[in-house]
Amino acid sequence: MAARRIKAAAANAPLLISMGCPAGIGPEIITRLFASDSGWQPDPEQPTVVVGDMERLRLAARITGHRRLALKPWQPGEPITPKTVPVLQVDSADLNKLAWGEPDASSGQAMACYVETAVSLILAGQAAALITCPISKFSLKAAGYRFAGHTEMLASLTGTKGVHMLMAGPRLKVALVTIHESLKAVPRLLTSERISDCILSTGASLKRDFALDHPRIAVAACNPHAGEQGLFGDEEFLVIQPAMSLAQSLMPEVELSGPWPPDTLFYQAMQGHFDAVVAMYHDQGLIPFKLVHFDDGVNVTLGLPLVRTSVDHGTAYDIAGKGLARADSLKAAVLMAQDIVRNRKRHANEL
Amino acid sequence: MAARRIKAAAANAPLLISMGCPAGIGPEIITRLFASDSGWQPDPEQPTVVVGDMERLRLAARITGHRRLALKPWQPGEPITPKTVPVLQVDSADLNKLAWGEPDASSGQAMACYVETAVSLILAGQAAALITCPISKFSLKAAGYRFAGHTEMLASLTGTKGVHMLMAGPRLKVALVTIHESLKAVPRLLTSERISDCILSTGASLKRDFALDHPRIAVAACNPHAGEQGLFGDEEFLVIQPAMSLAQSLMPEVELSGPWPPDTLFYQAMQGHFDAVVAMYHDQGLIPFKLVHFDDGVNVTLGLPLVRTSVDHGTAYDIAGKGLARADSLKAAVLMAQDIVRNRKRHANEL
Repeated sequence: MAARRIKAAAANAPLLISMGCPAGIGPEIITRLFASDSGWQPDPEQPTVVVGDMERLRLAARITGHRRLALKPWQPGEPITPKTVPVLQVDSADLNKLAWGEPDASSGQAMACYVETAVSLILAGQAAALITCPISKFSLKAAGYRFAGHTEMLASLTGTKGVHMLMAGPRLKVALVTIHESLKAVPRLLTSERISDCILSTGASLKRDFALDHPRIAVAACNPHAGEQGLFGDEEFLVIQPAMSLAQSLMPEVELSGPWPPDTLFYQAMQGHFDAVVAMYHDQGLIPFKLVHFDDGVNVTLGLPLVRTSVDHGTAYDIAGKGLARADSLKAAVLMAQDIVRNRKRHANEL
Repeated sequence: MAARRIKAAAANAPLLISMGCPAGIGPEIITRLFASDSGWQPDPEQPTVVVGDMERLRLAARITGHRRLALKPWQPGEPITPKTVPVLQVDSADLNKLAWGEPDASSGQAMACYVETAVSLILAGQAAALITCPISKFSLKAAGYRFAGHTEMLASLTGTKGVHMLMAGPRLKVALVTIHESLKAVPRLLTSERISDCILSTGASLKRDFALDHPRIAVAACNPHAGEQGLFGDEEFLVIQPAMSLAQSLMPEVELSGPWPPDTLFYQAMQGHFDAVVAMYHDQGLIPFKLVHFDDGVNVTLGLPLVRTSVDHGTAYDIAGKGLARADSLKAAVLMAQDIVRNRKRHANEL
């Protein structure tokens, strides 16, 4: 499928929060967000709309102690009523019998439809960005979807190739060359093309989304000690270094370095030596990222034609429905989406 | 080779610091340690001796601004003169022309001999523990040794199978099932036997070396999200869970849990939920460990018949000879060796 072109968003087009798995903590963190439990306040200039299910949100509002929260149906193009939670209701599956923490095919169907609806609106220029609450890959599969997660689904919905996950927080930004793959599959998936694509996406995002003119990107090695001069592993000189050379030639304004021994690189990045790290696989990047940004990490999808951020936690079925979930990561994801939308507008005006 | 039995150390038998690569920062951090630059003071009840080269130490003392440091030749069995740096001189190769930061076959030969000498003394009961300064695997190979590092060398010298590396600090302890292996090699090296051996070594060490009666050990998964119920990777149920069952049956007093998704596990461990994490591969364990304990991490070798701790940094050839290296990690390694020797004596008396 060819890449879908996105229509420029209307001024004041809302940011959309997709509710995620209706059996997970998504509804609770949304109600907590709008009730300002995490200190977030809606920005009238960048209104925020929930794409999901009114009834689940109502239940969640009770669970989180916010039964007076003004949930209000909203349709695309309508103005946003201040001090309400605008909700675009998506009816896709019967959720009446859904228990918290017990996802099934209907919850899988529902959460996929929230994302599909949101993407359509953004592609049509009726919304400015997507912030996603967590879905469960397992439940998605139960509903018949073949995607490993949001990122893969969004790539498919927008006809995009070469999307990458960037985990972003105030102290650390980490992009992933491979994501939801078994450890065994990683080495053969590390091609020069994939790696240079990820470096280039990261560079483009740091410039356009984070307003850095000369971003400093560090590339992690694949092997411990960066392979110790070939003693254990050769991906460093076989694929990573060629990828770096290619990326550097295409993006000379980026200060590119590596491949660095992974075990000390993230400490260096934390000290402010780099603006982002390109990691070769999921846990290489996410172990350090979550250690540093457990509560305030944001997942940004690079390479899509739309702005998408996400909480960096899962559905947390073990605590869903108990009123225990916190909205910190969702707040961070909304704020980052707002920033990116602003930076992209500025960047577009400068070009 | 059968495991070498160790002779009980004489009372007040010294702890030995091997000097590591004579072209690296080992000599400098040793002179800084004894000059109390990191606040360490020798313990008269547990004297500490350097196994290495007097001339390199003299050069390093000048470089670090401690030319008055009282380096004093020492031979096994001799008493330790207070306020001196006792040095067991090992002549193995000509180091006269060795430049800082430029290791060669002679430096590789020398650093291996320091370790061999120290191990002989400990096995003979003439010393109580070994603290190693960094060697370079590359230079070791140049000198004709086939070991990937200290750990493998010590296993060979003591005829031990199933040694494991435990990285230990005040906030995090991480044991590694596989160490210096390419990422590609890791999945096939993860056998139930290796994993259960590592769990059992970790449990034994937490009890004997760290005086924890009921240690809580968390086992990391191999794959992201612990394989997400088999969607990406199956090592969790094929090898890790069977290994855990075996280890638990052999060591019922250990509180064992896992396999946990790696990206959130280390945060949980940092919060104090576990006494140690068993990691499946080098960077899985060392990325979070070095993020938390960059300056004060200690490497403890589990499974050896002798007590061995090590600094957790490398030879740092780029700064060797410049007086820039800090002794914090060496100080931590010496203090931990002292603790372990004390705890083992107490543990032996209780049995």
